[in-house]
Amino acid sequence: MNTTKTLLSGIQPTGRMHLGNYFGAVQSWVTYQNDYNTFLFIADLHALTTKYMSPEGLRETKQSLLQDILACGVDPKKACVFFQSDVSMHAELHLLFSMMTPLPWLERVPTYKDKITAMQDHDLNTYGFLGYPLLQAADIALYQADVVPVGRDQLPHMELTREVIRRFNHLVQKPVFKEPEALLTSHDVLLGTDGRKMSKSYGNTIPMSDTPEQRSATVMSMVTDPNRIRKTDPGTPEVCPVFAYHRIFNTADRVSEIAAACRGAEIGCVACKRDCAAALNAHLAPIDERRLTWSSTDTLKDIAKDGAKRAILVAGESLAKAKKSLHL
Amino acid sequence: MNTTKTLLSGIQPTGRMHLGNYFGAVQSWVTYQNDYNTFLFIADLHALTTKYMSPEGLRETKQSLLQDILACGVDPKKACVFFQSDVSMHAELHLLFSMMTPLPWLERVPTYKDKITAMQDHDLNTYGFLGYPLLQAADIALYQADVVPVGRDQLPHMELTREVIRRFNHLVQKPVFKEPEALLTSHDVLLGTDGRKMSKSYGNTIPMSDTPEQRSATVMSMVTDPNRIRKTDPGTPEVCPVFAYHRIFNTADRVSEIAAACRGAEIGCVACKRDCAAALNAHLAPIDERRLTWSSTDTLKDIAKDGAKRAILVAGESLAKAKKSLHL
Repeated sequence: MNTTKTLLSGIQPTGRMHLGNYFGAVQSWVTYQNDYNTFLFIADLHALTTKYMSPEGLRETKQSLLQDILACGVDPKKACVFFQSDVSMHAELHLLFSMMTPLPWLERVPTYKDKITAMQDHDLNTYGFLGYPLLQAADIALYQADVVPVGRDQLPHMELTREVIRRFNHLVQKPVFKEPEALLTSHDVLLGTDGRKMSKSYGNTIPMSDTPEQRSATVMSMVTDPNRIRKTDPGTPEVCPVFAYHRIFNTADRVSEIAAACRGAEIGCVACKRDCAAALNAHLAPIDERRLTWSSTDTLKDIAKDGAKRAILVAGESLAKAKKSLHL
Repeated sequence: MNTTKTLLSGIQPTGRMHLGNYFGAVQSWVTYQNDYNTFLFIADLHALTTKYMSPEGLRETKQSLLQDILACGVDPKKACVFFQSDVSMHAELHLLFSMMTPLPWLERVPTYKDKITAMQDHDLNTYGFLGYPLLQAADIALYQADVVPVGRDQLPHMELTREVIRRFNHLVQKPVFKEPEALLTSHDVLLGTDGRKMSKSYGNTIPMSDTPEQRSATVMSMVTDPNRIRKTDPGTPEVCPVFAYHRIFNTADRVSEIAAACRGAEIGCVACKRDCAAALNAHLAPIDERRLTWSSTDTLKDIAKDGAKRAILVAGESLAKAKKSLHL
């Protein structure tokens, strides 16, 4: 265990956690917590950049997300898990960073204009949405993170974080904050039930907290190889979203058998999906079981409170250093 | 005493407090503290918008500003006096407001482009400088201020504050924050020693903490009526910066005598200035005396700490309401 390195990661409470989130991020957290001094936060302030017009249900979403994270195997005794808005230092450092960050640095972030265009139904032309990457920079800097797991699309944000930290350290002539490294995540991408990226806005997700029965029903309704109309038509597993799931949830042997049976029209889609649903539910059974042990709202509140307390110790120290270096 | 109404005012620690600050703001505070539930803050976070490149000395400036404020007669038992950066809620509410504030609202603030142009030696094209009026909105909203004393040039900022508060209350469908009213300040404007606006950047200020001897020397070096070259030339008091000081610091009778003597070439500029310096020093004598009673750094620190504690009680309650209304 390398406790000398610190890792930070966050997740936005924009809805119930789904399988895509699990494979995209949370599954790795379970490994990270053994290898790093790990800070994991539920980014409720970030969620407001897009949800400010209708924040109803945010509190419940945060709670259920915390429950799912713990169910996935994150251990609050190992990782420090907390809600971002419980730690005032995120907003405070964001404000300090804002003083020294040139506007064009934020206007040039590639995802900025893209997202405004993509989310036409939200009014994202706000001061806060422009400052989003600066809040991320504060999130990271506060914990003196060495590494931050990110997808390739997040690399410009990481570069901005590094630039902001360099500028701060340069202006105060002290190494107050550590420049973090991006830890590029490379894992199986789990697509949605229709073969597109799994996303709540596509309506193609499988929520982690669904019951095995609900999950089976979802798998049974999945899109398959569109050219395989009758059971007697030979299928092409490579284009079938269900087969993609088999590859993740089934054993290698069984995956080969199914591929052959599909190509040879020996197995129908209904049977194939039933097999897939069973494999998926088996894979998630330990998570389902753990979720039950984290079902008490009071316990979840205590864990979040305890996490915030630990986070405040570290973030408070960093902020104090930053304020001192600015002669505040 | 009307304790039901709350008043908030702030001052930036950009340098030593001078006579212009006193007549422009702090003198009124001494009255306000008897009539309102009064919150007075030293806006050290705002100061960073322009001082981020060279914040050296900021801590000492804050301390001496606090000392001057108390010397002027602000009573920490009546008014709550504190440093802005000691109260985390300012940054926290600023962040929440930022989420729902359209960028054009900030870009359109009249003082924004003007100040960027005027302060070419500072790089003000930062995210934080654009958000400056939003931090002011948070400052005001946190204390549920009924009135905010402002000069006419600050009215657009007040209007923005009111708009931001209306928008917040509208979006969360609850009257979380009170819409403040501007209290237009109308007092004698004290110009600088050269007849221009008193401003540190013009080098024409008289610092409050100067000794009587220093002040006398400053008055003796003041610009006078440029057309009165010899003592035998009749002067025009209306164009003389020294005469403007007489009107503020001398008795009405003496002001009339001096005006007549100047017009009749009966008094020379040196004698006139000597008289002015004496009147100025007499006016400031009670302040000089009180400053001595507030000379302990430890006492000043305790007063700021105590002020912050009281401010946090009020600001914390407002922020909690705001967070709850956003389902955080």
